[in-house]
Amino acid sequence: MKKLINAPDAVVRDALEGIELAYGDRLRVSYDPAYIVRADAPVEGKVGIVSGGGSGHEPMHGGFVGRGMLDAACPGEVFTSPTPDQMLEATKAVNGGAGVLHIVKNYTGDVMNFDMASDLGKAEGIEVEAVVTNDDVAVQDSLYTAGRRGVGITVIAEKISGAAAEERRPLADVADICRRVNAQGRSMGVALTPCTTPSSGEPSFELGDDEMEIGIGIHGEPGRYREPMAPAAQIVERLATAVVEDLPYDSGDQVLAFVNGMGGTPLLELFIVYRDLHRFLEERGITITRRLIGNYITSLEMAGCSITLLKLDDELTRLWDAPVDTPALRWGA
Amino acid sequence: MKKLINAPDAVVRDALEGIELAYGDRLRVSYDPAYIVRADAPVEGKVGIVSGGGSGHEPMHGGFVGRGMLDAACPGEVFTSPTPDQMLEATKAVNGGAGVLHIVKNYTGDVMNFDMASDLGKAEGIEVEAVVTNDDVAVQDSLYTAGRRGVGITVIAEKISGAAAEERRPLADVADICRRVNAQGRSMGVALTPCTTPSSGEPSFELGDDEMEIGIGIHGEPGRYREPMAPAAQIVERLATAVVEDLPYDSGDQVLAFVNGMGGTPLLELFIVYRDLHRFLEERGITITRRLIGNYITSLEMAGCSITLLKLDDELTRLWDAPVDTPALRWGA
Repeated sequence: MKKLINAPDAVVRDALEGIELAYGDRLRVSYDPAYIVRADAPVEGKVGIVSGGGSGHEPMHGGFVGRGMLDAACPGEVFTSPTPDQMLEATKAVNGGAGVLHIVKNYTGDVMNFDMASDLGKAEGIEVEAVVTNDDVAVQDSLYTAGRRGVGITVIAEKISGAAAEERRPLADVADICRRVNAQGRSMGVALTPCTTPSSGEPSFELGDDEMEIGIGIHGEPGRYREPMAPAAQIVERLATAVVEDLPYDSGDQVLAFVNGMGGTPLLELFIVYRDLHRFLEERGITITRRLIGNYITSLEMAGCSITLLKLDDELTRLWDAPVDTPALRWGA
Repeated sequence: MKKLINAPDAVVRDALEGIELAYGDRLRVSYDPAYIVRADAPVEGKVGIVSGGGSGHEPMHGGFVGRGMLDAACPGEVFTSPTPDQMLEATKAVNGGAGVLHIVKNYTGDVMNFDMASDLGKAEGIEVEAVVTNDDVAVQDSLYTAGRRGVGITVIAEKISGAAAEERRPLADVADICRRVNAQGRSMGVALTPCTTPSSGEPSFELGDDEMEIGIGIHGEPGRYREPMAPAAQIVERLATAVVEDLPYDSGDQVLAFVNGMGGTPLLELFIVYRDLHRFLEERGITITRRLIGNYITSLEMAGCSITLLKLDDELTRLWDAPVDTPALRWGA
């Protein structure tokens, strides 16, 4: 295992220190329990938004803390759920009197722990709602999940819900918008290589020299099937067909297209994937009106990508376009 | 070789098509000869800035085209210099009557071709100046370079020169500022793995399972030495000592610190490197007042990082902070 780390059990703490040193003007970092929070939290009268999950998917979620997106993020150890006390303290730290939304990717540990944190928050008089994302069409039930896994749509949901919260919409509205994003979003990914967690030191799975895993999970959970490597256009067709047929997305739809790198794939390749996705959708009469291309929900150094589509309407488009000012996503701010 | 591509000889063209489809509202793409240019070029009365080089280092340079940074970028084939006709056509496309600055990384092919393009531009009546970056302290003379290689400072120089050009400073001033950034900047990198160009299909070099190459070049050119993997803090010390002692950077200096990922290194690790760099510099009385952390000058899927320092003064800080609006760097815009 070759990694730029000091010790496997110090990875998350060391990285948090780096984040605090880099962005201390805009973020605060708590270490025990661990969470990252907007420096100006709680924002009076604004719904607070908290997300979190295992580390190793950076910039998600810590890189999305800031005006127009998350109020706080709770990082667990690598590929391990954060604990309820992290989530509870983050919830209290962002509660500006308008309630708190938890955005939770559908993994059993995350859901259970956020659920507990929600109960604890309510017991302290904080209004809490939770939205669980489950956009991955690859498989039903998985290594760490009952139902579908939550993947790329989480990034989009955090951006759009964050914009709604900035408009001082009430908690029920912000949660509804978040649910709508999840309901109108679908994803699927592919791995060309496994990744290695610092604690195990071993690749999460094995793949042949000329093989890829279609439908990979973001922790290396098994996908739908393996097959020999193919040209990008064919891989895009595999992923996008599954995504488009699932919702389904129809001719005339306008979508946000999110081409996400898993961490170890050059940006050059992601632009090729975007090109092939554009062509695929165009042939079906589906128009990309917004896009996001880059490494936003990663799996350490895994090579591969995922495709996420969100069916847009005027409101979601407007909220997507609203200013955002976080370490990883920044525009109009 | 596992890559998300359609064919080795179609990589650059396919990616350019993706870039045009993604950013067509702000960039124009020319295919023959290949360059990416601001949609509003030429900007009347503004110095035009052109850079370029082999592809495979994305987002450099194409991702830096936009207001406040580059006017145009010329992508060569992967790890191969673009040709003089690309550079000439880009120069003509961005000439708004105030002259054109070429920012050239010090590799023999790039320098030669930009030199020829400069002569051709001048023959057509365009005022052209060139600045060659050569910030890599690792080695003198290298596989593709006489003298030092140009690496991370190029990103910073493009940002700061772009801000000066937006202020409508004359060509001589913009070139002076660019030279000053190069003169006050130093870099060194480390590779944990090689990378594979699409055309060769083979790793650019071999590294043992527990080995790293200190002083690596961005095309996999040999560095200073190899040694066994070490904790991040020790790797940072190796790189930062070479960088700091070279200029030298002294106690009391304020610097911009740029921790750059080579493409295959998780962001989580880059934050650990940033933490360790901060500590290293703090012990020497050097203060980081600005920073950039992420994958900006990459080597395909190579794992590793580079550290760049720029000694700041008030003017360079102000120009760094100025608004920039490009696909890869965006703030205040």
